[in-house]
Amino acid sequence: MEARARSTPLGPGGEFDRIREVLRGARSHSSQVLVPVGDDATVLAPDLVLSTDLALEGVHFRLDWIEPDEAGARAVGAAVSDLAAMGAELVGVLASVAAPAGEVWAPRAAAFMAGIRDRVEGLGGLLLGGDLTRSPSGLLVDVVAVGRAERPLLRSGAGPGDELWVTGHLGGAAAAVRLWQEGAPVPCSLRGRYAHPEPRLAQARWLVAHAGARAGLDLSDGLAGDAGHMAAASGLQVILEADTLPREPHPEVTLEEALHGGDDFELLVALSPGAESDGRAAAFRERFNLPLTRVGILRAGRGVALVAPGGGEPVALTRGGWDHFSRIQEDMF
Amino acid sequence: MEARARSTPLGPGGEFDRIREVLRGARSHSSQVLVPVGDDATVLAPDLVLSTDLALEGVHFRLDWIEPDEAGARAVGAAVSDLAAMGAELVGVLASVAAPAGEVWAPRAAAFMAGIRDRVEGLGGLLLGGDLTRSPSGLLVDVVAVGRAERPLLRSGAGPGDELWVTGHLGGAAAAVRLWQEGAPVPCSLRGRYAHPEPRLAQARWLVAHAGARAGLDLSDGLAGDAGHMAAASGLQVILEADTLPREPHPEVTLEEALHGGDDFELLVALSPGAESDGRAAAFRERFNLPLTRVGILRAGRGVALVAPGGGEPVALTRGGWDHFSRIQEDMF
Repeated sequence: MEARARSTPLGPGGEFDRIREVLRGARSHSSQVLVPVGDDATVLAPDLVLSTDLALEGVHFRLDWIEPDEAGARAVGAAVSDLAAMGAELVGVLASVAAPAGEVWAPRAAAFMAGIRDRVEGLGGLLLGGDLTRSPSGLLVDVVAVGRAERPLLRSGAGPGDELWVTGHLGGAAAAVRLWQEGAPVPCSLRGRYAHPEPRLAQARWLVAHAGARAGLDLSDGLAGDAGHMAAASGLQVILEADTLPREPHPEVTLEEALHGGDDFELLVALSPGAESDGRAAAFRERFNLPLTRVGILRAGRGVALVAPGGGEPVALTRGGWDHFSRIQEDMF
Repeated sequence: MEARARSTPLGPGGEFDRIREVLRGARSHSSQVLVPVGDDATVLAPDLVLSTDLALEGVHFRLDWIEPDEAGARAVGAAVSDLAAMGAELVGVLASVAAPAGEVWAPRAAAFMAGIRDRVEGLGGLLLGGDLTRSPSGLLVDVVAVGRAERPLLRSGAGPGDELWVTGHLGGAAAAVRLWQEGAPVPCSLRGRYAHPEPRLAQARWLVAHAGARAGLDLSDGLAGDAGHMAAASGLQVILEADTLPREPHPEVTLEEALHGGDDFELLVALSPGAESDGRAAAFRERFNLPLTRVGILRAGRGVALVAPGGGEPVALTRGGWDHFSRIQEDMF
């Protein structure tokens, strides 16, 4: 996850605006940097894509929700999803791990590391390096995802009239988190959406190569928030239609979770109009056996607006997505 | 710091051997990976050098020792030192930062981030990206150092008869940590060695280009431990001579600290014999106004042995350097 991606574009940024302000003061342009801070990943000449993504116990995962090996695998999936968001191929990852000292933690840490290694290799990548140190508080890993993209898919390439499409289903991961927090049983399908995110690497490359995707990102902050990132980067307004959202097909999942829930790690892409009628969407679905759903459009303006269920005029959305310093995270302590 | 660099090559690895074992099972070779896990950094074709290095409050630094901006700058210096160890030029860093929520922490976190940014820019690099999230316990950053090296300086290139040379002085950072732990006043010069490590980027490139450096690394784990890394990677034995060690010129610094103290971030390089008599060492000192000291030799065999003060036969060293799961770190809690 790139630095600005965790901010709250649609609402007040809170106390951490001060920190983000520091980043804005940084120089980030040179002939070697093709895509600087501000997209899902950084691109260095000629085609190297780099992203870094922290996963901390108690903030991003809890060991009473998932097993240590799942937590490691999930961190890799989430980090590699940023490469998918750039239309990149995976080369591998570097993993900086910290674990508490003591015999209780050693097997957990070993499982965490094995989960990281196995997930990287399962995705066809290599464990390229890392760091291993002691943690004062729980497991943590920073996963550096390394990939290559000759034609990076940016957030900024959308044009007015483009249609917005989403892969897969939304809201499952957020529903799982809510049920855990409520102490309720978590259905396996929702647990899986949280525990085993699937970076859409091949799907993104296909959408660039065969569907003319002009802008894209991965839904880590929630559809509303991430659509706001694309709107801001492309200098346009996003109109989302509530009735069209591909809500995770489970009765527990709310529209709210489909709209604002983070960490589904599906793709949001802007395609030129007509992908349904000209067969691009059908070709995608056949190729990947995965839904591809039109959820809105881009037009002149700014911000994100929602057409409520049943229709009507679009209403501006003011709430952000999965902000790591706000609501959902606060609930985790 | 690359994963295996934090292990203890000369002594028992402790409970975290299990974790390291997981890494050894990882695939790490492909046509794109020129230098895999096991050196100071990873090298990807054609010339990209990547390293990742965690710095955690309470483990790698304490805010009653140094200021938050110094802690951020130190983390960058330590991470970039791994690029120096590869003879690389710095492109920039990605910084994944976590900070506790709350108004008390916001200014500390902003200073930490500013220290990171300013240090990167002071070293001529760019802040390329990062992540920002909430921490359950203190400040932490994972710094991903990105560089380029056409001729990477590995740990494995030394030959029998090569001489070992060290830049600068050793033991200052370890002495500062000891004095803090004892509650004693810390002299400014020693505090500076801990707080403001200087990655020897230009020095390493010069040693490769003008002094024929055949192997090298940065002294983050302590001379004895890091010499052991080079010995193991090069398939040789290292003989260190206690009387020659360039101990930090302060009466508080012990021989023990010069030999085993970590985090001085000076260079250890293997040069073909005769660098003193043929003028290579003198040229380095004149160019950089920095000591370059012959501390030992490499010969057939394995491990590290020390000629004690006053001379005599070399005696095998069995204790490791700065192991993040052992002695010095344990003392920090």
